[in-house]
Amino acid sequence: MEDNMAKVAVLGYGTVGSGVVEVLDTNAAEVSKSAGEALEVKYILDLRDFPGDKHEAQVVHDIDVILNDPEVEVICETMGGIEPALTFEKRALEAGKSVCTSNKELVAAHGPELVELAEKNNVSYLFEASVGGGIPLLRSLNDSLKHEKVDSITGILNGTTNYILTKMDKEGAAFETVLKKAQEKGYAERNPEADVEGYDACRKIAILASLMSGKHVHYEDIYTEGITKINIHDFEYARALNMSIKLLAMCKKNENGFFTMVAPFLVPYENPLASVNGVFNAISIHGNMLGDVMFYGKGAGKNATASAVVADVIDIVKHKGKHIEINMKAEKAVLSPKDNAVRNFFVRVSDDLEEQAREVFGNGVEVVKRNSIHGEFAFVTEPISEKDFEEKLWKMDSVKGYIRLY
Amino acid sequence: MEDNMAKVAVLGYGTVGSGVVEVLDTNAAEVSKSAGEALEVKYILDLRDFPGDKHEAQVVHDIDVILNDPEVEVICETMGGIEPALTFEKRALEAGKSVCTSNKELVAAHGPELVELAEKNNVSYLFEASVGGGIPLLRSLNDSLKHEKVDSITGILNGTTNYILTKMDKEGAAFETVLKKAQEKGYAERNPEADVEGYDACRKIAILASLMSGKHVHYEDIYTEGITKINIHDFEYARALNMSIKLLAMCKKNENGFFTMVAPFLVPYENPLASVNGVFNAISIHGNMLGDVMFYGKGAGKNATASAVVADVIDIVKHKGKHIEINMKAEKAVLSPKDNAVRNFFVRVSDDLEEQAREVFGNGVEVVKRNSIHGEFAFVTEPISEKDFEEKLWKMDSVKGYIRLY
Repeated sequence: MEDNMAKVAVLGYGTVGSGVVEVLDTNAAEVSKSAGEALEVKYILDLRDFPGDKHEAQVVHDIDVILNDPEVEVICETMGGIEPALTFEKRALEAGKSVCTSNKELVAAHGPELVELAEKNNVSYLFEASVGGGIPLLRSLNDSLKHEKVDSITGILNGTTNYILTKMDKEGAAFETVLKKAQEKGYAERNPEADVEGYDACRKIAILASLMSGKHVHYEDIYTEGITKINIHDFEYARALNMSIKLLAMCKKNENGFFTMVAPFLVPYENPLASVNGVFNAISIHGNMLGDVMFYGKGAGKNATASAVVADVIDIVKHKGKHIEINMKAEKAVLSPKDNAVRNFFVRVSDDLEEQAREVFGNGVEVVKRNSIHGEFAFVTEPISEKDFEEKLWKMDSVKGYIRLY
Repeated sequence: MEDNMAKVAVLGYGTVGSGVVEVLDTNAAEVSKSAGEALEVKYILDLRDFPGDKHEAQVVHDIDVILNDPEVEVICETMGGIEPALTFEKRALEAGKSVCTSNKELVAAHGPELVELAEKNNVSYLFEASVGGGIPLLRSLNDSLKHEKVDSITGILNGTTNYILTKMDKEGAAFETVLKKAQEKGYAERNPEADVEGYDACRKIAILASLMSGKHVHYEDIYTEGITKINIHDFEYARALNMSIKLLAMCKKNENGFFTMVAPFLVPYENPLASVNGVFNAISIHGNMLGDVMFYGKGAGKNATASAVVADVIDIVKHKGKHIEINMKAEKAVLSPKDNAVRNFFVRVSDDLEEQAREVFGNGVEVVKRNSIHGEFAFVTEPISEKDFEEKLWKMDSVKGYIRLY
């Protein structure tokens, strides 16, 4: 007797994997209504055993048990990291099983080839949870907004750095102090490099840029700056300018080509990205007909991320026997150099160098003053290309730092 | 010879209708990629002729030409109003043609019965553009978030009133002054009642509440308050409380039942809805696993709204021969009375009635002071039910006004 349940396997019973199982359990009725049939977790792959766990009996240690079971239709890869996740995903797709994943590192590095492999095997490869946690972003891009000419995507894609920047701003605390507190609270990893150096946001914008361009944007090609150089005085100047400081990840298509970068930016208060605070993520998309839409939500967290994985599982079950098209070919995308991008820059120098600033950057520089900060001079340049800015900055004595304006 | 183009008819060649045709023209390549086949506007129904218009030859004056043409698969109703739109939509569905519309008035009043009629005829009835303009909200609710137990939807659903409130707040100008300017700029109708009295937001939350409950929430049952009583002093108090004043439309499911209302609310700055300014709309959805997600964008405008209609057309073409399920039955939803909802209220009275306020509302009332405002007294109550608040307010002398806290 055949039952009418779609069989799912979860690879990795950690935070996200156990969240996926929990969503499938807790919302079983809603899930089956949405998918058109009930879903059953048949296997959970993990190196560990989970004695006493409700799903103890589903835990296996051998991927082949899963791959050789013809009943399994969907595989959720929630292990993270490149290997063995990549090998498992490839073998699953080759075995005619659809795969969905929250693994941004893997999707950024190999997503396009896995989409092509899925197409070849007439199954699907989905990764909603890899960007923006539970925010239904990728499905909207691939579905409701697919008929738009999207020319820019800008996002706050890393909750840890946004939390740190928000705390520094609101409490006037130094980067190291806030980072330490965030680590104590579990908002930041013990090794915070991936977050604070912008590497995590870089992986995520690489995925969005690949979807936007239809080609593979290699994350190694993306200019990436983290938030470690931002100091508390920067926030005081930002307030004087009616701006927030945010780590933005962006990709843009214009007459200069296709360009993507990750860096801290001064964002005017009137831009809704400026008021995205704490661990929240937000992604703003501009389409030629639609104008701007923004999606906002928690970019991480067990249940939110798991809910996005489950949305993919449901989509796969609804499209049984069909490949869900994703606009992402393995061909390498060519990015424009950042040199041509034109913007204003905020600059701080050690001495009162107003005269020098005007000599180097022209009379249009706008002086920014804070009575509370002494022994330095700050200004905003007129719009200038990245390349020209870099060249001119060399001519200034004693530069303390600079931040781009959005 | 049969061509491979899905044939579309547009009813009403006004702002949204001509926008739909423009989106289909301008983004033809993207549209056909998304739909899987090209789309052709075969007919445009309007009372007027459009000599010189690119689509002059498609204009017809008789609905029967469209309904009797078996080639037409999709009908976009962009006429607005109840009749003759309702009759045309019904006849189209009965003729086996799918319908999509931006007509919020009609969807609020008859949407659920039209969804049922579509199901009976194995076609689809979609209305993404009826709420939130171009924001891909309904499709996300019906798709990516369908496996969530959604227990609350709160939105700023009317751009005109949000523009007026924003201007009053930022410029300290009176309601009438700002309204007049908004009318001059075309942001408000000459007869502004539908917007400023909250009727438009009420229609939209009725649609969202129907989707959330799966039944027909009648808009006449929704408690609705507009913004005409908000005055400039309210914004000064709001600032003292670190809050904005927003016209919120909301529906909530909790132990008291299912409840929906439209009214101005004081919204704390830390809530992202507080910083939604100008003509923008935003809708926050809370799911049991997902937590909060918010969608933000222009809630009106020709091309944004048209883009949402086109997204529906594409969805229909992709699901040819299938009814797209919408969670909305014609059965009437039972709403809880607002009496039981518990919240804080902000109250202004004519004289210095602190003692009376404490007698009536208890010692927990919080006094709100503005040095710039004289001859009155303002306070915030402790959490209290709507019913108790109403009863107690009668005991206060000379009440000038009150606003709910979100």
